[in-house]
Amino acid sequence: MAAGVAEKPAMTPFPGSRQNTTQVRQKTSHARDAVLSQYGVVRQESESLCRPLATEDYCIQSMPDVSPPKWHLAHTSWFFETFLLIPFFSGYQRFHPQFEYLFNSYYEAVGAQFPRPQRGMLSRPTVEEVYRYRAHVDAAMAELIHSADEEQWEEIAGRVTLGLHHEQQHQELFLTDLKHVFSVNPLRPAYREPSAMPRQGRSVPLEWIDYPGGVVQIGHHGEGFAYDNESPRHRVYLQPYALGSRLVTNGEYLEFMEAGGYGQPEFWLSDGWRTARERRWEAPLYWEKQDGRWRHMTLSGMQPVDEHAPVCHVSFYEAHAYACWAGKRLATEAEWERAAAEQDVAGNLRESGALHPVPADMGTVPLQMFGDVWEWTQSAYAPYPGYRATPGALGEYNGKFMANQMVLRGGSFATPTAHIRATYRNFFYPRDRWQFSGFRLADDR
Amino acid sequence: MAAGVAEKPAMTPFPGSRQNTTQVRQKTSHARDAVLSQYGVVRQESESLCRPLATEDYCIQSMPDVSPPKWHLAHTSWFFETFLLIPFFSGYQRFHPQFEYLFNSYYEAVGAQFPRPQRGMLSRPTVEEVYRYRAHVDAAMAELIHSADEEQWEEIAGRVTLGLHHEQQHQELFLTDLKHVFSVNPLRPAYREPSAMPRQGRSVPLEWIDYPGGVVQIGHHGEGFAYDNESPRHRVYLQPYALGSRLVTNGEYLEFMEAGGYGQPEFWLSDGWRTARERRWEAPLYWEKQDGRWRHMTLSGMQPVDEHAPVCHVSFYEAHAYACWAGKRLATEAEWERAAAEQDVAGNLRESGALHPVPADMGTVPLQMFGDVWEWTQSAYAPYPGYRATPGALGEYNGKFMANQMVLRGGSFATPTAHIRATYRNFFYPRDRWQFSGFRLADDR
Amino acid sequence: MAAGVAEKPAMTPFPGSRQNTTQVRQKTSHARDAVLSQYGVVRQESESLCRPLATEDYCIQSMPDVSPPKWHLAHTSWFFETFLLIPFFSGYQRFHPQFEYLFNSYYEAVGAQFPRPQRGMLSRPTVEEVYRYRAHVDAAMAELIHSADEEQWEEIAGRVTLGLHHEQQHQELFLTDLKHVFSVNPLRPAYREPSAMPRQGRSVPLEWIDYPGGVVQIGHHGEGFAYDNESPRHRVYLQPYALGSRLVTNGEYLEFMEAGGYGQPEFWLSDGWRTARERRWEAPLYWEKQDGRWRHMTLSGMQPVDEHAPVCHVSFYEAHAYACWAGKRLATEAEWERAAAEQDVAGNLRESGALHPVPADMGTVPLQMFGDVWEWTQSAYAPYPGYRATPGALGEYNGKFMANQMVLRGGSFATPTAHIRATYRNFFYPRDRWQFSGFRLADDR
Amino acid sequence: MAAGVAEKPAMTPFPGSRQNTTQVRQKTSHARDAVLSQYGVVRQESESLCRPLATEDYCIQSMPDVSPPKWHLAHTSWFFETFLLIPFFSGYQRFHPQFEYLFNSYYEAVGAQFPRPQRGMLSRPTVEEVYRYRAHVDAAMAELIHSADEEQWEEIAGRVTLGLHHEQQHQELFLTDLKHVFSVNPLRPAYREPSAMPRQGRSVPLEWIDYPGGVVQIGHHGEGFAYDNESPRHRVYLQPYALGSRLVTNGEYLEFMEAGGYGQPEFWLSDGWRTARERRWEAPLYWEKQDGRWRHMTLSGMQPVDEHAPVCHVSFYEAHAYACWAGKRLATEAEWERAAAEQDVAGNLRESGALHPVPADMGTVPLQMFGDVWEWTQSAYAPYPGYRATPGALGEYNGKFMANQMVLRGGSFATPTAHIRATYRNFFYPRDRWQFSGFRLADDR
Repeated sequence: MAAGVAEKPAMTPFPGSRQNTTQVRQKTSHARDAVLSQYGVVRQESESLCRPLATEDYCIQSMPDVSPPKWHLAHTSWFFETFLLIPFFSGYQRFHPQFEYLFNSYYEAVGAQFPRPQRGMLSRPTVEEVYRYRAHVDAAMAELIHSADEEQWEEIAGRVTLGLHHEQQHQELFLTDLKHVFSVNPLRPAYREPSAMPRQGRSVPLEWIDYPGGVVQIGHHGEGFAYDNESPRHRVYLQPYALGSRLVTNGEYLEFMEAGGYGQPEFWLSDGWRTARERRWEAPLYWEKQDGRWRHMTLSGMQPVDEHAPVCHVSFYEAHAYACWAGKRLATEAEWERAAAEQDVAGNLRESGALHPVPADMGTVPLQMFGDVWEWTQSAYAPYPGYRATPGALGEYNGKFMANQMVLRGGSFATPTAHIRATYRNFFYPRDRWQFSGFRLADDR
Repeated sequence: MAAGVAEKPAMTPFPGSRQNTTQVRQKTSHARDAVLSQYGVVRQESESLCRPLATEDYCIQSMPDVSPPKWHLAHTSWFFETFLLIPFFSGYQRFHPQFEYLFNSYYEAVGAQFPRPQRGMLSRPTVEEVYRYRAHVDAAMAELIHSADEEQWEEIAGRVTLGLHHEQQHQELFLTDLKHVFSVNPLRPAYREPSAMPRQGRSVPLEWIDYPGGVVQIGHHGEGFAYDNESPRHRVYLQPYALGSRLVTNGEYLEFMEAGGYGQPEFWLSDGWRTARERRWEAPLYWEKQDGRWRHMTLSGMQPVDEHAPVCHVSFYEAHAYACWAGKRLATEAEWERAAAEQDVAGNLRESGALHPVPADMGTVPLQMFGDVWEWTQSAYAPYPGYRATPGALGEYNGKFMANQMVLRGGSFATPTAHIRATYRNFFYPRDRWQFSGFRLADDR
Repeated sequence: MAAGVAEKPAMTPFPGSRQNTTQVRQKTSHARDAVLSQYGVVRQESESLCRPLATEDYCIQSMPDVSPPKWHLAHTSWFFETFLLIPFFSGYQRFHPQFEYLFNSYYEAVGAQFPRPQRGMLSRPTVEEVYRYRAHVDAAMAELIHSADEEQWEEIAGRVTLGLHHEQQHQELFLTDLKHVFSVNPLRPAYREPSAMPRQGRSVPLEWIDYPGGVVQIGHHGEGFAYDNESPRHRVYLQPYALGSRLVTNGEYLEFMEAGGYGQPEFWLSDGWRTARERRWEAPLYWEKQDGRWRHMTLSGMQPVDEHAPVCHVSFYEAHAYACWAGKRLATEAEWERAAAEQDVAGNLRESGALHPVPADMGTVPLQMFGDVWEWTQSAYAPYPGYRATPGALGEYNGKFMANQMVLRGGSFATPTAHIRATYRNFFYPRDRWQFSGFRLADDR
Repeated sequence: MAAGVAEKPAMTPFPGSRQNTTQVRQKTSHARDAVLSQYGVVRQESESLCRPLATEDYCIQSMPDVSPPKWHLAHTSWFFETFLLIPFFSGYQRFHPQFEYLFNSYYEAVGAQFPRPQRGMLSRPTVEEVYRYRAHVDAAMAELIHSADEEQWEEIAGRVTLGLHHEQQHQELFLTDLKHVFSVNPLRPAYREPSAMPRQGRSVPLEWIDYPGGVVQIGHHGEGFAYDNESPRHRVYLQPYALGSRLVTNGEYLEFMEAGGYGQPEFWLSDGWRTARERRWEAPLYWEKQDGRWRHMTLSGMQPVDEHAPVCHVSFYEAHAYACWAGKRLATEAEWERAAAEQDVAGNLRESGALHPVPADMGTVPLQMFGDVWEWTQSAYAPYPGYRATPGALGEYNGKFMANQMVLRGGSFATPTAHIRATYRNFFYPRDRWQFSGFRLADDR
């Protein structure tokens, strides 16, 4: 694999995207319109998601991890400007000379970055200017896609695909962050009507699905787009194991809470215990007890907690503590991927419109592998054997975060179906709770 | 004095305002229209000041000390709602039940307060809703002013006057805070056109005005409005002293900087030295050296530093260090007030339209006693002999801040003329720099 | 005054000490033995105070404000080495080249200082080496005192006197700091036998002593030693006032606590309220409720709180809140000094051996002006009119601390009688509680 | 495996120790003297290591991670008291009732713990009392070992073995911590004579040792003592790889430094880059440039850096950055263990007396697998498949730390030979530098 990387032109962003775009090109042959069409759909979706916002909502950063909606809109445009228009579109005129600095998230190779915790301190550019920035980039991108030299096309198409997946990631983060922004406001605004909330239902009983041990392969292999951190595909040895047939529910998590789980150190990792005490955790993020009943913040404002729906907004530490209390454990990412690889990508993903986790329904077990909530695994985020980050700025996309974070799998109700796959590796710090994160139990066999 | 306070009805906010409104009533006799007219002028001015803002500008809090423009607009309305409409207007309907909490600044007796450092995290209420809140309050205030019972009128008129002075204070804070908000944005937006900046000029030479020692009186005495912290008027003994005939200029301050003043502990108070090192102070706030020349942020964006204009945005620590370096000292507030009491209130105040400090011109010495920049004194903010804070929430306006802060005198280019007077005591922490604060030298005689 | 300062030789540390030593020399005429004898007595006392310590006790720093006993012993020797032996004793050999750095407390003009919060991280020099350092300095000082040139003698004698007062200050701080060191140890060691604790008794009733208004003089005037911050003597105008006849007792303070004083913001300064909440203050420092009764840490370990003894280990904020709750106020330093100046220096000072505050007994009112506990005043620590700090390192002794601190008066049970006087100005931050600090009420008349 | 755990009596601390002590008992049959003898040797070694200390050295905590020598001596005794004497020795009298609290490191199941960052604030118990505590425990342990019931013997012997390995760990930590304590003292004390430092030498050239891919087994299997985190032994799949034949040297690391490695984000993990900037890392811990040459703190005080000796006191982040810069990577713990398992445990371990890393000499490659410095791996510290922490307090020994830390392998110059083995898993946070930590390069094949 490493040798293969060396042979590629320096500009290819990710192994997966190269393979993908090669295929795409073969299939679509000169049909750049298809790329442009896909570009338009994804870019438009970002703006559609913003439709319910007031101008003021675009500007708020409720904690350092959160970015204002305006920033998401601008940064995703910056991505196309920086990695496509500037290197490939000769004569491109930057929209504004300081946007390179203002909307660089973390690419050291591109240059200095405006400090992340201060993203909420920028009233300018205004929302309207950011939309003009998007239009400026979109117009130039359309021209680039149509007029690029054939020898650069493969590289360009690969980068466009990467840029669109990047934008889809930010669409999910937009919802994640906006929920946090609204949650710190005592007025508890709703992103959409409460009537849009999924109704309460029933959940199917928990069963155990057994998997035998042995050598299996995980990681991306040459069909469709993937990030570089999903490669190389490689062998791992698994002991026999079992997975829970569905996600852990709010009702089950409440049992843990009512059994005093937040006060019993024996179930917690040491760092988790300290974090939970310092931050006074007593329930998942966004939960509040009112008149003896639990309610939580949703994208439709404060709502009752549905005991049949999957628990969400728990940290890895809480997921781990619950699993210890239940006498089980979390899955490794390899255990999860092997099971997910046998399934189609379907579930409560963004296209369902639920915008909230929903109770498991009958179906192919294990249920809820895709969608609803990202599933914490017990795997630290680390390079696959043979992984080397691509040289240059795009190599910073994933590789430099391979320390101190845990892998999550499967996507959430906010993930577009086209964005998720069995090999997809998401990663957050074990203390993080503002993502749409839950978990599934696993066990030894 | 204490006995006098005891005789007043509990609701009277401040001694000064009582005397004032009594007089006003005598003069205007049933002419409540005059009060309403003044109310309309001041309230309108707050909104006029906001005219250059984009919607996004209303929401930003660039540091905990700063409040977003939207918050200033709402809080000043909250003041009238809380201290006038709710106690005096029977049947008044609150605009929103949670605004009591959201827009309470620091009045413990009113109830809990939304945490100050999070004022910038609120996208809602929107700007438009805040303007509707203002209109709602204004309509009710107009009705109250016209229809209040005669026996409550004196109290009401006193509180309206207090509320309008409160609003004028926030008009200045609005400009102070907005300048900071724009300064942290790398785009350095301008509140108004650069062409509006005062032109560079010349300054008059520094002279010394001598004052003899002896017992003098300071503090407010019964004409016009004053805050409670300006009373009681009382005797103090002053040693003979001299005041500089004008404010210290940027050019003079630059000499201190170029002589290494920021690196020489012998001129600094111990706390000031530590603060300056920790925060890496090397110049006044907002100054930046570009290509060997100093420029600074203004309400018209980045501009060259005018060496003849008064230095601004220095902390008490820096003012003190400069004075030590110059072999002089700062004035006490009594020394300053005794000199100011002999002058009319005039100078580069808000009505001048400069919105920036300007060089001293010929005139009655000492020059620049009012306007341009607030002058740090060497007096810690403390109660005058016989001062007792009024009972109730309005007693929190000034009294509870009488520790750790220093008195500033004279107003700035952002202070309305009608708001300032010789007895006026402003106060900030010795480390604060974002106010329009400068200083004048004093000496022993 | 400033002119007078300029005429003095640059080396004279403080105006007071010059006048003092002149007198001393005239009286004692060539009797340098007297100075040496006094030197020996004070230096020996520092070591006597350490007699109950284990070697380990000498090394501990329980918070940044506290210095280890070993450091006090070394720093007081450093003072003589730095300000006497090095400038005046030609051929003096430093004990160790790095002690100049290690034991410099805060004299920037001498050079860099080992960071204060790390004083407890130094196992070396050992205790035994520090005692050898003391002996080395003492031997050289004896030689200097006997052999100094006559023309330098006045300066030397003045500095010796300053050094001895400095050492006496550190003797008190040694006890203050040691109490804190022992208090954080769950074993709660005792500095001396519990049997040595003063017995519980009765307190005299609180009366009010009236003082008329008018111009009075405060500050040091040329008899005996004084620090530079006690000069110049100057006129102040006082309104009529009254002082409480004794200190506020534990029993009285308990009434405030039981009335909910720690939970009622209306009695607190804003900074005090915030501090008390952040630090969860609910009683004076060192108080603990056990089985429904209050006990507190003393130099004889944990002991019951004596309701008749003066309250100790309260911050200025707590003293202020109590006074507001009681409808009174604290005295200004001028009010206090004028009353104290009429009394002899006598009371529960170190020579009493109580090492703890004791109930007031019959006597000349106001009682307890000297000794028992330092009395918080409502006066911010500021320069007297005409004060200029002496040039050079010794000018850093007091002057650079004149911001953010409050004046305390009268000495405590740990202050040597020879060290305290009516003009003495002690100063600490309003949040500080580990000093032996209490308070007396005052009122307007 | 989980089933096997369930069959064991609840008191058995670790699987490995049970197997071990079973064997020991079979071999030594009733010869409890052997256990007691081993006990005496290890316990005595802790005290021998302290011989060069002054009393003051025993008390210092130079940062929260560091414990004072006195604490190490007491805590290791607490371990025997808590896990052996109290449960198994009826009639045992505790030495002091509060030592259970004072010297509990992190065992929540035992009870509350004195706060770790305050271990340096305890002058009492004195050093002499701690030695008496040790003697008290040793006497009781001797009696317990001789007189315990036969049916409890296996459990007791297992726990004694665990306690002795625990004590050996603390012997290494004692040296690690003491080095830090001395390093923050500007006097830079030496633990032993400089003449004892290993002489500078030459290093062998770096070669690469290739290993084929495939399924291998790692983890402890039933011979001798092991901690629970080394079990269960299990299969892992390795890709072909290569290991560097020796540790990375100071000279090689200097090349990285001189090439600007500390200033080039492309070689760093994101968290590492941020940490290195915040803490201003520019060289390994303890390195100082004097007159253009690098020197570093050693147990013999400040000494020149030997370019041929292994680099030490680098964080995982620095090791990772170096490896990226060199175009290589760190080994996984499985890759390392598979290579180490083929070797005898030998190298520059504590018995060599060097107390410092030394240049690699000729020998069986890979060299320096044991001793010199702990080797950072790229493996996050995580449970082996099938691992379950033992119930009860002893289960807290290792399991609860399995988040956010990285595995180190191979022991250091401070590790006793009897304490280290190929399966041994040490773990620290990736930012930690005060351990004796270095690294070896690995590569893909």
